[in-house]
Amino acid sequence: MKQSKALELVKAQLTDRRYEHTVGVMETAVQLAQTYGADMKKAELAAIFHDYAKFRPKEEMKQLLIEEQMDERLLHFHHELWHAPVGAFLVQKEVGIMDEEVLSAIRWHTTGRPGMTQLEKIIYLADYIEPGRRFPGVDDVRALAPLHLEKAVLAAVKNSILFLIGKQQPVFPVTIDTYNDFIQNGDDG
Amino acid sequence: MKQSKALELVKAQLTDRRYEHTVGVMETAVQLAQTYGADMKKAELAAIFHDYAKFRPKEEMKQLLIEEQMDERLLHFHHELWHAPVGAFLVQKEVGIMDEEVLSAIRWHTTGRPGMTQLEKIIYLADYIEPGRRFPGVDDVRALAPLHLEKAVLAAVKNSILFLIGKQQPVFPVTIDTYNDFIQNGDDG
Repeated sequence: MKQSKALELVKAQLTDRRYEHTVGVMETAVQLAQTYGADMKKAELAAIFHDYAKFRPKEEMKQLLIEEQMDERLLHFHHELWHAPVGAFLVQKEVGIMDEEVLSAIRWHTTGRPGMTQLEKIIYLADYIEPGRRFPGVDDVRALAPLHLEKAVLAAVKNSILFLIGKQQPVFPVTIDTYNDFIQNGDDG
Repeated sequence: MKQSKALELVKAQLTDRRYEHTVGVMETAVQLAQTYGADMKKAELAAIFHDYAKFRPKEEMKQLLIEEQMDERLLHFHHELWHAPVGAFLVQKEVGIMDEEVLSAIRWHTTGRPGMTQLEKIIYLADYIEPGRRFPGVDDVRALAPLHLEKAVLAAVKNSILFLIGKQQPVFPVTIDTYNDFIQNGDDG
């Protein structure tokens, strides 16, 4: 799919602000793919569609989670986590993207998962550090991103967990599994 | 079992330093049991034996974890976590303590678990705040302990997770489940 066509399709699904974020993630993801020798077209496509389901009604997402037998633990956690797996499903169904590498990068972009692929790491990280992001710790992760993909993703995962605990918010178990996986099996563990 | 007999049994299993810690946990647990209207004799017994397996050889603990089909995820985490479930088993087998309330307080004193009983909370907390404990954040939890059991245990669980992440150490999944349980189902959630 051409970049312009993909962007047009996703623009219709997003607010202007979220569309700007998406363009930032796209540019960042392509750059990271180039740096780390990943497939730049796949990175571009996954980035463009990563938030495809972001503004779907909560009830629609909930129904899809149940019907499509996605991780049922998600139902007990904030619906903010739902748009990633639901997005992977809808992008396949509505846009016709069949590339499992691209779909899984969309599916895991919010929680991460143990054994993340390189493309999953790139999209997770690009979403975290794109130029529009402003929050404590983001500059450190941004500085690390072009130097060491694993360490940068781990830093982002750690920051996310610490942020949630600091706000007394639940932490989705898969995110802790991701953190533990980097610590226990990562190449800088 | 008489306090003196219990202390004698456990003293033989521990270093002097750990025995002192145990006496601190005992005194703290009894006080907390009194404050919160829990069974003071059960609190005393669980506290005295909570570290019973602390100095068992790693290989013996590993074998028991496998033979007794304890949570196999423990094998992938630090053996520091093993003495609690192994202790609950050995205290039953070697000391003859059969009270499941007491045994489960020993079993969960390191990781916590979702749906902790009052006695489990008391032992977990007493272990964390006994007078010999010195680490960042302990004074805040100590101050909270006589005022609000749930909040104090949650604060201890949070501190433990933040400490581990700060040291780039793995976090046992059950500890995150415990944290989430307090946040999502606790009486101050």
